[in-house]
Amino acid sequence: MSGNKAVAYKAPGIVEIIDTPFPTFELQAGPGVNPVNVGRKVPHGVILRTVSTNICGSDQHMVRGRTTAPAGLVLGHEITGEVIETGPDVEFIKVGDIVSVPFNISCGRCRNCKEGKTGICLNVNPDRPGSAYGYVDMGGWVGGQAEFVLVPYADWNLLRFPDRDQALEKIMDLTMLSDILPTGFHGAVTAGVGVGSTVYVAGAGPVGLAAAASAQLLGAAVVIVGDLNEDRLAQARSFGCETVNVAVGDPADQIEQLLGVREVDAGIDAVGFEARGHGAGAQEAPATVLNSLMDLTAAGGSLGIPGLYVTGDPGAADEAAQKGSLSLSLGTGWAKSLSFATGQCPVMKYNRQLMMAILHDRIQIAKAVNATAISLQDAPRGYAEFDAGAATKYVLDPNGYLSN
Amino acid sequence: MSGNKAVAYKAPGIVEIIDTPFPTFELQAGPGVNPVNVGRKVPHGVILRTVSTNICGSDQHMVRGRTTAPAGLVLGHEITGEVIETGPDVEFIKVGDIVSVPFNISCGRCRNCKEGKTGICLNVNPDRPGSAYGYVDMGGWVGGQAEFVLVPYADWNLLRFPDRDQALEKIMDLTMLSDILPTGFHGAVTAGVGVGSTVYVAGAGPVGLAAAASAQLLGAAVVIVGDLNEDRLAQARSFGCETVNVAVGDPADQIEQLLGVREVDAGIDAVGFEARGHGAGAQEAPATVLNSLMDLTAAGGSLGIPGLYVTGDPGAADEAAQKGSLSLSLGTGWAKSLSFATGQCPVMKYNRQLMMAILHDRIQIAKAVNATAISLQDAPRGYAEFDAGAATKYVLDPNGYLSN
Amino acid sequence: MSGNKAVAYKAPGIVEIIDTPFPTFELQAGPGVNPVNVGRKVPHGVILRTVSTNICGSDQHMVRGRTTAPAGLVLGHEITGEVIETGPDVEFIKVGDIVSVPFNISCGRCRNCKEGKTGICLNVNPDRPGSAYGYVDMGGWVGGQAEFVLVPYADWNLLRFPDRDQALEKIMDLTMLSDILPTGFHGAVTAGVGVGSTVYVAGAGPVGLAAAASAQLLGAAVVIVGDLNEDRLAQARSFGCETVNVAVGDPADQIEQLLGVREVDAGIDAVGFEARGHGAGAQEAPATVLNSLMDLTAAGGSLGIPGLYVTGDPGAADEAAQKGSLSLSLGTGWAKSLSFATGQCPVMKYNRQLMMAILHDRIQIAKAVNATAISLQDAPRGYAEFDAGAATKYVLDPNGYLSN
Amino acid sequence: MSGNKAVAYKAPGIVEIIDTPFPTFELQAGPGVNPVNVGRKVPHGVILRTVSTNICGSDQHMVRGRTTAPAGLVLGHEITGEVIETGPDVEFIKVGDIVSVPFNISCGRCRNCKEGKTGICLNVNPDRPGSAYGYVDMGGWVGGQAEFVLVPYADWNLLRFPDRDQALEKIMDLTMLSDILPTGFHGAVTAGVGVGSTVYVAGAGPVGLAAAASAQLLGAAVVIVGDLNEDRLAQARSFGCETVNVAVGDPADQIEQLLGVREVDAGIDAVGFEARGHGAGAQEAPATVLNSLMDLTAAGGSLGIPGLYVTGDPGAADEAAQKGSLSLSLGTGWAKSLSFATGQCPVMKYNRQLMMAILHDRIQIAKAVNATAISLQDAPRGYAEFDAGAATKYVLDPNGYLSN
Repeated sequence: MSGNKAVAYKAPGIVEIIDTPFPTFELQAGPGVNPVNVGRKVPHGVILRTVSTNICGSDQHMVRGRTTAPAGLVLGHEITGEVIETGPDVEFIKVGDIVSVPFNISCGRCRNCKEGKTGICLNVNPDRPGSAYGYVDMGGWVGGQAEFVLVPYADWNLLRFPDRDQALEKIMDLTMLSDILPTGFHGAVTAGVGVGSTVYVAGAGPVGLAAAASAQLLGAAVVIVGDLNEDRLAQARSFGCETVNVAVGDPADQIEQLLGVREVDAGIDAVGFEARGHGAGAQEAPATVLNSLMDLTAAGGSLGIPGLYVTGDPGAADEAAQKGSLSLSLGTGWAKSLSFATGQCPVMKYNRQLMMAILHDRIQIAKAVNATAISLQDAPRGYAEFDAGAATKYVLDPNGYLSN
Repeated sequence: MSGNKAVAYKAPGIVEIIDTPFPTFELQAGPGVNPVNVGRKVPHGVILRTVSTNICGSDQHMVRGRTTAPAGLVLGHEITGEVIETGPDVEFIKVGDIVSVPFNISCGRCRNCKEGKTGICLNVNPDRPGSAYGYVDMGGWVGGQAEFVLVPYADWNLLRFPDRDQALEKIMDLTMLSDILPTGFHGAVTAGVGVGSTVYVAGAGPVGLAAAASAQLLGAAVVIVGDLNEDRLAQARSFGCETVNVAVGDPADQIEQLLGVREVDAGIDAVGFEARGHGAGAQEAPATVLNSLMDLTAAGGSLGIPGLYVTGDPGAADEAAQKGSLSLSLGTGWAKSLSFATGQCPVMKYNRQLMMAILHDRIQIAKAVNATAISLQDAPRGYAEFDAGAATKYVLDPNGYLSN
Repeated sequence: MSGNKAVAYKAPGIVEIIDTPFPTFELQAGPGVNPVNVGRKVPHGVILRTVSTNICGSDQHMVRGRTTAPAGLVLGHEITGEVIETGPDVEFIKVGDIVSVPFNISCGRCRNCKEGKTGICLNVNPDRPGSAYGYVDMGGWVGGQAEFVLVPYADWNLLRFPDRDQALEKIMDLTMLSDILPTGFHGAVTAGVGVGSTVYVAGAGPVGLAAAASAQLLGAAVVIVGDLNEDRLAQARSFGCETVNVAVGDPADQIEQLLGVREVDAGIDAVGFEARGHGAGAQEAPATVLNSLMDLTAAGGSLGIPGLYVTGDPGAADEAAQKGSLSLSLGTGWAKSLSFATGQCPVMKYNRQLMMAILHDRIQIAKAVNATAISLQDAPRGYAEFDAGAATKYVLDPNGYLSN
Repeated sequence: MSGNKAVAYKAPGIVEIIDTPFPTFELQAGPGVNPVNVGRKVPHGVILRTVSTNICGSDQHMVRGRTTAPAGLVLGHEITGEVIETGPDVEFIKVGDIVSVPFNISCGRCRNCKEGKTGICLNVNPDRPGSAYGYVDMGGWVGGQAEFVLVPYADWNLLRFPDRDQALEKIMDLTMLSDILPTGFHGAVTAGVGVGSTVYVAGAGPVGLAAAASAQLLGAAVVIVGDLNEDRLAQARSFGCETVNVAVGDPADQIEQLLGVREVDAGIDAVGFEARGHGAGAQEAPATVLNSLMDLTAAGGSLGIPGLYVTGDPGAADEAAQKGSLSLSLGTGWAKSLSFATGQCPVMKYNRQLMMAILHDRIQIAKAVNATAISLQDAPRGYAEFDAGAATKYVLDPNGYLSN
């Protein structure tokens, strides 16, 4: 057990499989590790043998060179694993457990964790509240697109699946509990989706599709998904969503054809800062999605914004966007008494209940996002195809659990 | 009872006392009345003899010429009155009742009213959800800075005070129930203020002071008010708030001196679109307050935004602001998982409970905002002094109720 | 239009079809009409030609002689109709509209209505907060198991279906919006049912089945229904519920077989005061269901109690129960930190969203409760069969809308 | 540091100061310690030198012999202390910190803790969810009416005061954070108390007074406290409450004199299972308080029930009460759509915010409950006087922190 193959960011557009050290119960120096965290003891951690680990749209921001991620950073924050070793302070999680890892790292001991706000834990990232595995500026916790990974505060962070065989049988669904299913669900919840709602989801990538499937699970009457990518829209239609191709024209017109009115009850932004404008040949226009959602959401509604907006985007088209400023038509939003909810999903708030929904066949999330298993070695291909717009959620299989 | 003296907007910077018709149970054509509403029957209305009617900061937007308000528009949406005549459909409100009028006009019969969203009633304004008395683009319901005024859907809209004598004794407090107290309270509630909160209120005008007093009533541990105007800051200190003069420097530094940390739990924008930048000699900069609040509010917090943002501001400094667009550092907000609540306060949601707080001496709102009664004839002076920054809330007394 | 055939309670066990006066816009004296309400003007009302009107389990309490209902009382509070005449104060509801009538009568003008608590309106029943059509001690509003019926405060109370043809096509589902679907849904909501919940519903009558279907719509992982009646349990299984026959033994044992644990997250009492004990040959034991639910619901859970408990039950087995007292093991509930929610469902809080769910095929409530249309003349048979335990929800068709 | 003087229950009516072992990081066998917990390792614990530790009304249940508490049980679950030693797994709490200990013991790692339900932690009591220090059937964690005490899961459980000197200065207020202030606050919150509420608190013992002070902090308009004990009622009046002596007559009559109506918005039961009837010479009648609150609380209201109800009461007057059953007029509650919230207060949900309120002088809880410091040796006198009805909250001072 001396080695640990992993997916690393090398340069804009390039990821590689590299050899990294086997995890230990202490944070080591390395690319992207905050110096303050180096040497941090993790007796409360466990080491996982990775069962599945997914490529995420937010990884693409780094891979596209839209962040300050350093070369060599090991990627991966969507992790499901089998516990193979536990630190001395771990009391309830046991070797052999199959567990889902919330992408947010949290301590379970600070004010925010006690309030359930695990996306903004105060004790895991020296730079700011909130952290994640394998991500730039998140403290330096090593990514999980690897054979093995260390998970700190394991009793707090991990969601144990009740039965090993059942878990492995439904693993392509359960692997979505680490990030996109709770993230999409959080988008729907914060948008106020409930029984009978009409919903518009901007973006048909995996998070958008997860938000759409979540809205259905929450009892929405009609879920409409908008995107420019026809393959992804077809994916949305495959599980009963209505769709709008924003390249074709004004979404409000298309919504009116579907609903008889030009507005929905709830709007979800599953795109984030790399948004493009509507209509054919649209360019990057970071405020497009939010301004559009303010138009499309009825007065009194809420916007759930799981799509990522950043404080610094060196690759942005203009100076304002480079520092994370957007030109928002707040006057419109105010006149309609809209509310806006932003930020990382606090995964732990939702993952147990969503696990129950998966185990009892109330949601088919793997099918909804077209989950496809590939080997760890194939990760570079997965990144490339996903970046090219494939209507696929790639799930890496570093240890052969998925191919048996 | 054939006449009805009223305060009307005449031109930028100019308001006058004019003679207008005595109200009837039908909407008449007039300056600012939406043609679709002309002739609308109001059998569900009552006619009030005005007991008190306050000058509001949002009136100033019209008077400064920052809107498309037509000359002759009768102003006034902060109204308390005595019922002198009831329409045939009014069942529970009686002649002689002393009542508070929510500034929002709502029907009590549409989906939004049934959900308590009376700030965006669907049936009273042909242009968009939501309405108010004496305001541009709000349907044309005649303003209440007048001797008499018509209130539609009276059984639904009106808050009856339980005892006439008690009401008149506390009238300078109760007059704030029509708008600024619920509006400030709504700002505090939507900012998540609760017992033990630390709160920053941007703006020490009447709404900001009402928000500060509301935060205290909600149990906040520390309430900090920021403004450029020293008189208004002194007013905030008079009832136990801490203050920050944003002309002097970075509010975060001053907050750190007060709290030991640079952030508060909850942020309230009681300024709105006519914001100015921080520091000496600052110019109008409409996004300043919101961007500042994103800095000053701790991760996981909420921003309550009772301050008005408009969809069209012909007097704005630049083209974006003229159509209501602001350059917001949403990346900062997202990284901190902030939420944002906008829009008119749905007064009816709060006014009964705030009346109880006033009647039982739990809040001294008249004192907090330095309420000062003046005659209807003196309204032009009130407008001018308020616009010049007086730390005063002017209450008009058209019928002598306040001078007895 | 001078006559109006209706179903009336005559004596314990007996209902008859009688001739009653055509409704007018004024409450008339009659069996069960509160004298204080006689002569009450209803200019805000409409007259409906009944499209469908259902027999309810709570009607059975009267018919069984378990209440003080007088002979001649016209029954029926589950009403869907077509508007044929509107009072002078009705502004938005129009002749020809197909509408659902919430069984709660509410004024839309009192404090409770403004707070959305339409089940305890303060202005419609002189005896106590809350009212209903055709029910003892509810003020005397005439029942709707009739050809025609008067609905007061029509703009407030009525839910208009958006399209007449669509409404008539789905009428067997939409007819459940007047009571049992919102009532079951309210039970589920107040029991804390959400995505991933495990739920136990006590009682497989129409309200229990509606609660079960509602729990599914809310995303529950597993819904378990308990009853003594095998036909009704079969009905529950027909739409995916698990079932427990409480005559066979301890529900906790059977729940453990289904879930692996002896408790559920959420408990719903859809039985009420006429509960019988568990096990073979059980007698009436009014506290059985609630005490059982305290055992079966996990610590921290909530009990939704849509089942009716009364203040006076002349037919009860013992003196305590006759005045509505039950021997409850509150110590158990307290040790488990349980919460309890009682009372009439405020229908208006839910009916619009549930209508959307029906119109968009998210719930098949008619099938879940085995809705069966019968003629008005057949009402006595419907009452008898329902009382005998038929797994059927009877829907009366007084005007032939359902038979076309 | 080899000894540890502590207050122990010896026999009905008798407590004594005994010598007990100094705490170690492992649970030892002893009176009341669950055998399953013996030998449990506590590397996540800290040892506190007790700063203050209060006598609680719920201790009296044991001392009166109303429970199965064994002789020798060390009492005390209201603990504030100074950290003198930390276990190897403690990361954030440091030696020298002055901390408040929530009376609930919780692990911070189970489902309920993650949901904030720390009163029903699943991992600390082998018998049932939920635990406490020094209490019968709560797992056997040694009580804190002692010089030293062990606190498990210290990073999770402890609330650190920000400044040592400030903490010691306000210690008589801060000592109430371990139980009665959050418990009273929880009662008010779950009763739905908010700005403008009218509130009735049954019971003027320390929890009742804390509930009353909490209701004021939450903005209640009028707080009425009822009791039989005139000294305790005087204590309630000392900080602005209205009072009702239930020995004098029907509380509804007295409430009507105060409010003009016979009902309040919110009801709080701060008495629990040892309730006595109303009127002169009333005997123990465990259902009296709850039935009275159902009468006194307006339709649509909630009952917060912080008063303890037990599953077994060997000393009860009748067989039903001995097993924790009460004859409740649920019919009345149901007709009024009341809700009921029971169970231990999850202290951690409130203690930080209440600490802020204390530190910023928003609440004077020591004064409200008449906190009085006595030596550890005087504990027997404290128990006796408190049991005799003294309007005093006794605070033990085992290490001289309070006498300096």
